[in-house]
Amino acid sequence: MSRSGVITITTDFGHKGPIASVMHGIIYSRFPEARIVDLAHDIPPQWPPEAGFWVSRSYQYFPQGTVHLAIVDPGLRAERDILLVAYDEHFFVAPDNGLLGRLLDNAADAEVFTLDSSKLATLGIANPSVTFHGRDIFAPIAAELAAGRISPADIGKSSAEWTPAWLDEPELHAGTVSGVVITFDSFGNLITNIDVSLLAELQDPVVRIAGHRLPVLDTYSHAKPGDYLALVNSFGVIEIARAEGNAAQSLGAERGAPVVVTT
Amino acid sequence: MSRSGVITITTDFGHKGPIASVMHGIIYSRFPEARIVDLAHDIPPQWPPEAGFWVSRSYQYFPQGTVHLAIVDPGLRAERDILLVAYDEHFFVAPDNGLLGRLLDNAADAEVFTLDSSKLATLGIANPSVTFHGRDIFAPIAAELAAGRISPADIGKSSAEWTPAWLDEPELHAGTVSGVVITFDSFGNLITNIDVSLLAELQDPVVRIAGHRLPVLDTYSHAKPGDYLALVNSFGVIEIARAEGNAAQSLGAERGAPVVVTT
Amino acid sequence: MSRSGVITITTDFGHKGPIASVMHGIIYSRFPEARIVDLAHDIPPQWPPEAGFWVSRSYQYFPQGTVHLAIVDPGLRAERDILLVAYDEHFFVAPDNGLLGRLLDNAADAEVFTLDSSKLATLGIANPSVTFHGRDIFAPIAAELAAGRISPADIGKSSAEWTPAWLDEPELHAGTVSGVVITFDSFGNLITNIDVSLLAELQDPVVRIAGHRLPVLDTYSHAKPGDYLALVNSFGVIEIARAEGNAAQSLGAERGAPVVVTT
Repeated sequence: MSRSGVITITTDFGHKGPIASVMHGIIYSRFPEARIVDLAHDIPPQWPPEAGFWVSRSYQYFPQGTVHLAIVDPGLRAERDILLVAYDEHFFVAPDNGLLGRLLDNAADAEVFTLDSSKLATLGIANPSVTFHGRDIFAPIAAELAAGRISPADIGKSSAEWTPAWLDEPELHAGTVSGVVITFDSFGNLITNIDVSLLAELQDPVVRIAGHRLPVLDTYSHAKPGDYLALVNSFGVIEIARAEGNAAQSLGAERGAPVVVTT
Repeated sequence: MSRSGVITITTDFGHKGPIASVMHGIIYSRFPEARIVDLAHDIPPQWPPEAGFWVSRSYQYFPQGTVHLAIVDPGLRAERDILLVAYDEHFFVAPDNGLLGRLLDNAADAEVFTLDSSKLATLGIANPSVTFHGRDIFAPIAAELAAGRISPADIGKSSAEWTPAWLDEPELHAGTVSGVVITFDSFGNLITNIDVSLLAELQDPVVRIAGHRLPVLDTYSHAKPGDYLALVNSFGVIEIARAEGNAAQSLGAERGAPVVVTT
Repeated sequence: MSRSGVITITTDFGHKGPIASVMHGIIYSRFPEARIVDLAHDIPPQWPPEAGFWVSRSYQYFPQGTVHLAIVDPGLRAERDILLVAYDEHFFVAPDNGLLGRLLDNAADAEVFTLDSSKLATLGIANPSVTFHGRDIFAPIAAELAAGRISPADIGKSSAEWTPAWLDEPELHAGTVSGVVITFDSFGNLITNIDVSLLAELQDPVVRIAGHRLPVLDTYSHAKPGDYLALVNSFGVIEIARAEGNAAQSLGAERGAPVVVTT
């Protein structure tokens, strides 16, 4: 696979202190020509599905040959494998904790590797810290991949298994699709994991959330101020909005809240 | 106009999820040599004047030939034109909703174009989403402009009209200048739209806000802790501060709050 | 010293408006090949020790020849010198207000210069604003240093004195080390200024904070949910965490809170 030189970083590190930015330093130290994009650093620490959702819905807007680094590591951080994936002309590096489950469950032709720790020394990675693999393991690997000096097979063992996604992928059963709220954006729009393709066979679909029944509209422009509405957003999933309002606040819907589509 | 390869992005997308960062991906996909600066993503969704204020007060600190992309799109997002502007050796791309009104009202020699949607196909832009023009229309255009492959005239129709600024530009009448608070910074300093040039004819000007009358000082250093003061800030406008305090919080002054300068 | 072309920026400007990002514009205007990393912009305005802590604990993760710009300027901004430092194959530029005190107090072989304002004109810096030295003085200097066009000696006077650090460096006395909380991260972990080397002579050290006595563990994985624990973090200092919780919130420990290590 060709390399674009671009690396995206998705974490739960927030925007406090240099936790995310020292990873930029490590990358530039190894690969001065890198172009680094902070994809998102606001993932909640206990919620890898949001990181996996955004990576799987965003990677295609980056050049082919981009390396997508994602780290959300709840609980026992040191005791899980690291996945190296080549899929759809992109690379993905993430802890094997379900973060990439959604992407991989849908990706029959993905090449999946588990990091072989005994190969880290060949990359000059010695004595990584126990608590900051992002800086000490993930960032150097991303830099080497992006520079084109290694491929996943050079430092990983081919693997046919991985930790599955935390959330079941929504499916159409008996005229009903059941999904959940994955996250919300700065405008308070609720973003679900229900892909637009699931609606194809539903005539006049209705979205049910928190006691409301909402029609699926084409754009925000067909609603009156204060109206709730559902639409297919620009990432290809059902989104619940409130016209000129904040749906997340007024519905009180948290991440993981159920969303059902019926006719 | 020569091109610097730099693109600035100003939005109301906040720092949640990859909404702003996928625009970086689109830009790098078309123009790998781009250097991208997130000018500001904290503009309130219903307040284009703040985006226009910052763009018009900041662009001159960037290299000539920089492309400034600004998107704050309240209300009916799909139903407004897109402006392409060449002015003062910089390019500006923004919705025609008043965001650029302030810049253009003061810019007699600006070249203003309205995007001709029929030309999008020539740029390989097909089926843009209805709800994310930033990613699907603005970002590709900015990349092509920054790369020097197009000029505004190639994809736009020359236009002598645009949506005016939402706020009247402050003027001096009968010894009084009336303006408003545009925004506040991280320190709680209130930033107004009153340009320093308006004070030239006022002797010993006094700034009135929220029942206070404040002298205009040269620096923070002439005030005692807790004192309110007005000064001409580093962007050339009147700013209201509280020495070692937070003026925005203690004055309770919101965006749009009136500010008057008299003698 | 060779130059990496990388510039890091650490400030108390927050993420509101273009205050930090116009500095990128200035840098690109002078040095188009720069790679700019926002190290941290969330330093509290009255707390330079946090900026100095992060710079001194982070710089080594960047390429040699990187320029580290740090600005936290409480109080009378215009009335302090600016330090230019070459140390350990990196450059540092900061106000002389104690921000770099910790770094310099431990750096016998640092070359320290005080900016000679009369040399600014040679860099094309004329009429800098009084209130935004970051944009008008620090950023141009960082760009020139990173581009390799100047060295500190070209624009500074060699200096053997500087404003000392605001905080005493913790030391081991009579089996006890006394330090403070410097900051906390996005997970609510409290980060202290107690270096791991100080624990070498303490057998079974115990960390005391806010009435709690905590053992020093190797990783988060040896604690039960809700337990407080102390560990040596990935930046080489004692950190206080709460397993699957937020130590900063539940301990109510602020920046500057005392932390003591004994046996």
